[in-house]
Amino acid sequence: MLNKLKYLLIGSPLPNDMLTEKRLNKVRALAAFSPDALSSVAYANQEIFLGLVVAGAAGLTFQFPIALGITLLLGIVALSYAQTIRGYPSGGGSYIVARENLGTYPGLVAGAALLLDYILTAAVSLTAGVAAISSAFPELWPHRVWIALGLLVVIAMLNMRGLRESGTVMSAPVYLFLVTFGGMLVYGIYRAILQGTPTPLVLAAPAAVAPLSLFLIMHAFSAGCTALTGIEAISNGVQTFKPIEWVNARKTLIVMAVIMAFLFAGSIGLTQFFGIVSETGETILSALARHLFGRGVLYYIVQFSTLAVLAVAANTSYAGFPRVAAILAQDKFMPRQLFNVGDRLVFHNGIILLSAATAVLIVVFSGDPHALVPLFAVGAFTAFTLSQAGMVVHWFRQKDAGWQLKSVINGLGALVTLFALLVIGVSKFLEGAWISVLVIPGVVYIFLKIRQHYGSISSQLTMHGLPPSLRPLPRPRVVIPVSGVHRGMIDSVNFARSISDRVTAVFVDVDPGPDEDELRRRWNNWFPDTEFVVVPSPYRSLVEPLLTFLEQTDKAHNDGQQATLVLPELIPASSWHEILHNQSAEEIKKALLYQRRHKGLQRIIIDVPYHLEK
Amino acid sequence: MLNKLKYLLIGSPLPNDMLTEKRLNKVRALAAFSPDALSSVAYANQEIFLGLVVAGAAGLTFQFPIALGITLLLGIVALSYAQTIRGYPSGGGSYIVARENLGTYPGLVAGAALLLDYILTAAVSLTAGVAAISSAFPELWPHRVWIALGLLVVIAMLNMRGLRESGTVMSAPVYLFLVTFGGMLVYGIYRAILQGTPTPLVLAAPAAVAPLSLFLIMHAFSAGCTALTGIEAISNGVQTFKPIEWVNARKTLIVMAVIMAFLFAGSIGLTQFFGIVSETGETILSALARHLFGRGVLYYIVQFSTLAVLAVAANTSYAGFPRVAAILAQDKFMPRQLFNVGDRLVFHNGIILLSAATAVLIVVFSGDPHALVPLFAVGAFTAFTLSQAGMVVHWFRQKDAGWQLKSVINGLGALVTLFALLVIGVSKFLEGAWISVLVIPGVVYIFLKIRQHYGSISSQLTMHGLPPSLRPLPRPRVVIPVSGVHRGMIDSVNFARSISDRVTAVFVDVDPGPDEDELRRRWNNWFPDTEFVVVPSPYRSLVEPLLTFLEQTDKAHNDGQQATLVLPELIPASSWHEILHNQSAEEIKKALLYQRRHKGLQRIIIDVPYHLEK
Repeated sequence: MLNKLKYLLIGSPLPNDMLTEKRLNKVRALAAFSPDALSSVAYANQEIFLGLVVAGAAGLTFQFPIALGITLLLGIVALSYAQTIRGYPSGGGSYIVARENLGTYPGLVAGAALLLDYILTAAVSLTAGVAAISSAFPELWPHRVWIALGLLVVIAMLNMRGLRESGTVMSAPVYLFLVTFGGMLVYGIYRAILQGTPTPLVLAAPAAVAPLSLFLIMHAFSAGCTALTGIEAISNGVQTFKPIEWVNARKTLIVMAVIMAFLFAGSIGLTQFFGIVSETGETILSALARHLFGRGVLYYIVQFSTLAVLAVAANTSYAGFPRVAAILAQDKFMPRQLFNVGDRLVFHNGIILLSAATAVLIVVFSGDPHALVPLFAVGAFTAFTLSQAGMVVHWFRQKDAGWQLKSVINGLGALVTLFALLVIGVSKFLEGAWISVLVIPGVVYIFLKIRQHYGSISSQLTMHGLPPSLRPLPRPRVVIPVSGVHRGMIDSVNFARSISDRVTAVFVDVDPGPDEDELRRRWNNWFPDTEFVVVPSPYRSLVEPLLTFLEQTDKAHNDGQQATLVLPELIPASSWHEILHNQSAEEIKKALLYQRRHKGLQRIIIDVPYHLEK
Repeated sequence: MLNKLKYLLIGSPLPNDMLTEKRLNKVRALAAFSPDALSSVAYANQEIFLGLVVAGAAGLTFQFPIALGITLLLGIVALSYAQTIRGYPSGGGSYIVARENLGTYPGLVAGAALLLDYILTAAVSLTAGVAAISSAFPELWPHRVWIALGLLVVIAMLNMRGLRESGTVMSAPVYLFLVTFGGMLVYGIYRAILQGTPTPLVLAAPAAVAPLSLFLIMHAFSAGCTALTGIEAISNGVQTFKPIEWVNARKTLIVMAVIMAFLFAGSIGLTQFFGIVSETGETILSALARHLFGRGVLYYIVQFSTLAVLAVAANTSYAGFPRVAAILAQDKFMPRQLFNVGDRLVFHNGIILLSAATAVLIVVFSGDPHALVPLFAVGAFTAFTLSQAGMVVHWFRQKDAGWQLKSVINGLGALVTLFALLVIGVSKFLEGAWISVLVIPGVVYIFLKIRQHYGSISSQLTMHGLPPSLRPLPRPRVVIPVSGVHRGMIDSVNFARSISDRVTAVFVDVDPGPDEDELRRRWNNWFPDTEFVVVPSPYRSLVEPLLTFLEQTDKAHNDGQQATLVLPELIPASSWHEILHNQSAEEIKKALLYQRRHKGLQRIIIDVPYHLEK
């Protein structure tokens, strides 16, 4: 039943040999890996605007210069990652690059930063998408948390079906966004040329409430740096491209970076040129679209495709997070379940973990992207810096053709991203960056503890140092807790007698009365060769007296054995009926499990079912 | 650990022989059983006021007449229950009386009605208590759901500690309420005598928005009938009184009824005399207290003690519900866990069930007592009517001294409560009484299904008709699923060999590779006399291939046996570590349990622990 529902939702299982088939061509890969990067205009623009508008018209004149600075940064980082793709054709995420070249600790920091970044990408994209559509339909804003969670569920489900299926579904919104948003910018540039001179900002801008300061500009710059998040996605997923993987991946990266630069610088440039200021509850992109198209059909199409591409941007995280988690799990820094490939050849546990963490962020931050953004860029730029720095070491070690130029490019990338990271860390610290600054080392600590645990387990389980021959145990001594003389006991007694000559039935008497002798008589009548013991229970507990009896009988026999427990288990015909039974077997098992863990008990438990009909 | 926390909260276990000790003297019994009845002034007055105020001053003149009518009803019902206490000195709740005298179905209807009534008492009392304190501190009203749930948790915990302890804690608020509220009424009567003539209602009453009609008066009357709820509590708990039980119980009942009548009729009389009208968001009792005391210390003391006694009123349900549920469970109409007496000699499962149901009502009805009241009186008056009618039959059967008078009293009780029930059912139907009208038969249906299930189980388990001698089973055939060649397997293989000569180890290969032969070589090296089988798993599932293998091997052996499964189980040192392991043993057990239930599988499972350190 449950399995049927699962297969209906995520599709039937796929065999192992389909693993290599699930590769993406460039068009699909762009749709799968780029939406985060492309769609970041939707929140980066907004953050730059909100950062500068407090200084009024004087502040807003810095929009385009800041955008150009970030675009330059984007170019450097993109070139730098193109080197990474060449150097790690089998797929070199920040974690692998940092780990191989800088050592375990920097690698783990990069890994933790990257995982955090993926989670925040999903949360920020979904909430920013809801903000975009709420600009068009303000009545949706109070329901933003539920809308974002609903979108999250849909995306998670699609990803459980497998990457290619989701690639298909996701392509449409990405290309729709490119056409509508790109088209809007082209039309906007045409209008700008017609108009000739920029609209003076002082006409529209609200009065300044803060002086224009260097800190304010740095603050806006660091908020805008979120535009770069997601640019590394392709380098993590090189092996999902069709062969020759690195060539196709690199081409896709370059195309993506050019489109990104056009969308970002273009939209901010037009915003400043037309002196656009958003109303309360509206995004700055919505204000730009409204200025160009009015509140017509085209305006709604732009808003809708912004929501769509942001929803899809969350999907970038689904392409990246489970993969990075699986690599960490393979290296034993995360629970090994994250490396399990599910029915549909996806890392399903990683998908579940990402979805849960994203849902928590959406709920805790009330679905407001502006509250989430300060946490955002720290993870991304930490990973950028470590990965670029790792590449510099890589080229120094490899020294293949042109290594000097390559290392200069990556070195420049490392330096500018480190600078950006410091700016972000300082200017956004109190607004939320401190959370990321605390979480990353915390996650690294957990990584190390997990690795240590697995190491300890594997040294405990090794067969080295054991004597060459192992001898079987003596036949077990058996105890059966019985609840009365009835058919449910027969199979248990018979099985116990088939494996042992020393079988004791124990009746725990929670309600002392005269019928104890009658019970004993009936027992001996049916099972004459099995010892019958009655244990009183003054506190009405079933479990405690049984455990005490087991300890005592082990001590009394003094044969170095712990008595094996045979548990007669009544199986009701339906799970609804379970609540009508006392479930003593479950209670006994739980208590023994607890004893096992905390007292090192070795007791073996044998579960003998007896089926009830109806 | 968990046990320690539990004992800290609810106290250490008590032995069986303390069961008879936990009796209550009259002062404590009044505190334990009366608060629901006494405190109902807090909501009954309010409902009468809200029902009449829509008809303006003309409507409000009916407050005191309605109160007198309900007081008369109260007197009749109290006398009637005094007969019940005499007739059933061992404790005669509505369920027992109706069942013994009217038959099973009326008994079950009374039982269902009573359980519902107890749950609603708890929910209405707690929410009305929060309404009382919110009249004094309006800023609390938005948080009413959480406050009510917090109080519920405290009360549930006290009851888990046992009745006498809770009796002690609960006595203080009850007597505080009697002193402050009773004192306020006495002072009010003194003021009324000084004033001489009533304040004309037309001065304060708002304009009528509905005409004064018979329906409106009946509606207000039926809302006021909630004042009677809780009056039957003593008759359910006769056996918790000190001997002579019925004498003490009866005296307590009479005292309680007289106090109730004074509080109820007194407060409504004063409300009408002084022409009191409450402000929005204020209860009518708060308005009365404010009129008499102003917003001084005395006013706040009255409001606080009203909250306190209402919180304690919820406790009446805790004295009653678990007891009735236990009686129903003993008669096999409810899950038998409800009859289990816990560590502290209380019916702990009944306490948990009551708390959960009450919490649901508080949340669903947003903590508003006015929304809950329409559901309330149906259950109580159904139980009243059936119980009184049952007593009439009882006296007719017994024919002991004075049976004619006794049956007339109970007959009158049955008639007036039936009349009130009809008035309530009709006038409150659409406002929520329909829920109770649907729930009661639904609960009766569940009672009957549960009884039927237990009957079917006990006939399946009887030993009658079995052959006089039972033979042991042949030695088992054993299959061990193994995850590799490591120390965790040794105990399992050794145990399997101690009980069987036919042991097969099965390795499910989820990741086919060349190391299969190496694995087989290592296995045969360590366990030469145990067969080793590798089963491929193209879909990466561990469980499915194992189940298929078990079916096939059973078919191949064709010995009428199902192979016994020995499960090597790695036990991590702490439960935190569990998430770091794949928990294959758990998965296999779950799948087999499912097969057991749905395919009637008899397979025996043997759990062999292997302890991991650290």
